Amino acid sequence: MRATTIHDTRDIRVSEVPDPIIEAPTDAIVRVTAACICGSDLWPYRGENEITPGSTIGHECIGVVEEVGSDVNDVAPGDFVIVPFCHCDNTCAHCQAGVQSACVNASMTSSGQAEYARVGQADGSLVRTDGIPDPAMFPSLLALTDVMATGWHAAVAAGVRPGGTVVVVGDGAVGLCGVLAASVMGAERIVAMSRHEPRQQIATAFGATHLVAERGKEGGQAVKEITGGVGADAVLECVGTKDAMDLSFAVARPGATVGFVGVPHGVELPIGRMFSKNVGLAGGIAPVRRYLPELLGLVTSGRIDPGKVFDLSLPLAEVAEGYRAMDERRAIKVMIEP
Amino acid sequence: MRATTIHDTRDIRVSEVPDPIIEAPTDAIVRVTAACICGSDLWPYRGENEITPGSTIGHECIGVVEEVGSDVNDVAPGDFVIVPFCHCDNTCAHCQAGVQSACVNASMTSSGQAEYARVGQADGSLVRTDGIPDPAMFPSLLALTDVMATGWHAAVAAGVRPGGTVVVVGDGAVGLCGVLAASVMGAERIVAMSRHEPRQQIATAFGATHLVAERGKEGGQAVKEITGGVGADAVLECVGTKDAMDLSFAVARPGATVGFVGVPHGVELPIGRMFSKNVGLAGGIAPVRRYLPELLGLVTSGRIDPGKVFDLSLPLAEVAEGYRAMDERRAIKVMIEP
Repeated sequence: MRATTIHDTRDIRVSEVPDPIIEAPTDAIVRVTAACICGSDLWPYRGENEITPGSTIGHECIGVVEEVGSDVNDVAPGDFVIVPFCHCDNTCAHCQAGVQSACVNASMTSSGQAEYARVGQADGSLVRTDGIPDPAMFPSLLALTDVMATGWHAAVAAGVRPGGTVVVVGDGAVGLCGVLAASVMGAERIVAMSRHEPRQQIATAFGATHLVAERGKEGGQAVKEITGGVGADAVLECVGTKDAMDLSFAVARPGATVGFVGVPHGVELPIGRMFSKNVGLAGGIAPVRRYLPELLGLVTSGRIDPGKVFDLSLPLAEVAEGYRAMDERRAIKVMIEP
Repeated sequence: MRATTIHDTRDIRVSEVPDPIIEAPTDAIVRVTAACICGSDLWPYRGENEITPGSTIGHECIGVVEEVGSDVNDVAPGDFVIVPFCHCDNTCAHCQAGVQSACVNASMTSSGQAEYARVGQADGSLVRTDGIPDPAMFPSLLALTDVMATGWHAAVAAGVRPGGTVVVVGDGAVGLCGVLAASVMGAERIVAMSRHEPRQQIATAFGATHLVAERGKEGGQAVKEITGGVGADAVLECVGTKDAMDLSFAVARPGATVGFVGVPHGVELPIGRMFSKNVGLAGGIAPVRRYLPELLGLVTSGRIDPGKVFDLSLPLAEVAEGYRAMDERRAIKVMIEP
């Protein structure tokens, strides 16, 4: 099959690789209808994470079940499915506790930007749609495989409540989805830290009540002013850098929680401030499967439209341009159609 | 008045110092009936924190109101009061959010181990008892000024729930009170990490269902065995050292929260593990005043008896021996009677 492969820093290609096959009786093979590039794909792309040259890349896709292993009972060939980027049996103690991303049988989609993807623990992982969805809904369904569920997880972890004040640090697709999540959860004030106009527009469409373009100390000061000196009830850290984490703790009011979903890179936590101000930290890899039924309902009922984060759509052959566009921040999020 | 003063590492004296006076109209002066030595007093005692030679020390006391400032309305001379170690107006935004330890008018008892103590924001801080309590109840009331409220805070921050499995790291007075808190909150399994027999006995009396004497990797392994490999639903970190924090995260199951109340010294948080396993951290300086009404009710109704943590009682003149006894772990917690 044709699949996206990574060969070196900023070297993305479309290569012919062996088709994925059923390896375990709980596996399924999904024919990819639509895939996308994740902000975290940019870490290896930029040389921040180690890579194995020639390996496939991409962990977000939706599609049609092509084949299932002998132990798969709940999905069948022909089903249209949402593929959560982390697979889970949905029955182990960690899954039952709502932490499907720490499933004892966890695995991850490893060739999402390709014609086919293997999914482990298919019964536990895959969520079927009701028939084949309208293609107009593909972007929003695709967003559920990672970014929308991850933004939602940040909001859950941060303890967003109706009437509260929420600050979202990061205006990538996850941060924008965090704004949307906070809005659905009833937050009264949602401050999006964003200085890019196209992203500000989506943030506003998703429910942001305030936009703060400043960063660092000035950004913190702006939030202090918006909140009358008190700070935010909940902060969604959707980047993973030291600056983003520092800002998150700076704007959190005493007793608040920072919900973090950006893969941490070079972060050192301000434990002194956490202790003296009782500011907690929660979150991590989103248990996408936990949220899928609820989020799917919100998408199919038209209540949310997270697909708005896709501002560029390319055929698989042009996937390298998709990476470039996201790397250079010319695109927020790129959809790939095999 | 006579007060406990610190002059150098391991140099505790009883000195004649000026009586505290009303400095702000919201102050009260309390004649100390009973005081105690806190585990955190040992940090400066051991030279881990800087000191001002000759300064008073001690922040835990109960007593009788002697004098109040002109703006104090809710307590009056003659009232017997619990003095939370951190003072608060109990009206600011942070107090209203339950984080009285971050009150905008916060201060701290600074001469608790003395004849008199000044209390800031007396109306907000002090909690009156119903008449003068039976002296037999003094130890338990004294425990409410810090250790019991702090152990309770660890349990609240860690999200202890009925039926859950709780691990308490630290068998000092706070850790033991954490065991008691978890028990009152309905935890089904409470693992006390303790290798000192007198402390194990109190832990058991307070509700511990399991005792683990091992530390480090062996301690983590023991908890894994007790929990069938899953880990603890909630962990109470009641020490503040790197080893204690590392152990806390090692025994936390995915999705759990570590409630931390030990003043952090040299701690570095395992952000990679926190992210990959969704283990959160919450807690900090206990908002004692928030919990006092509930805890006072639990003590006066006989439901809890946190005073059991006091295993040595000394007159003020012998306070230096109290510090020695706690430093050398000959005593769990020392009561001082001026």
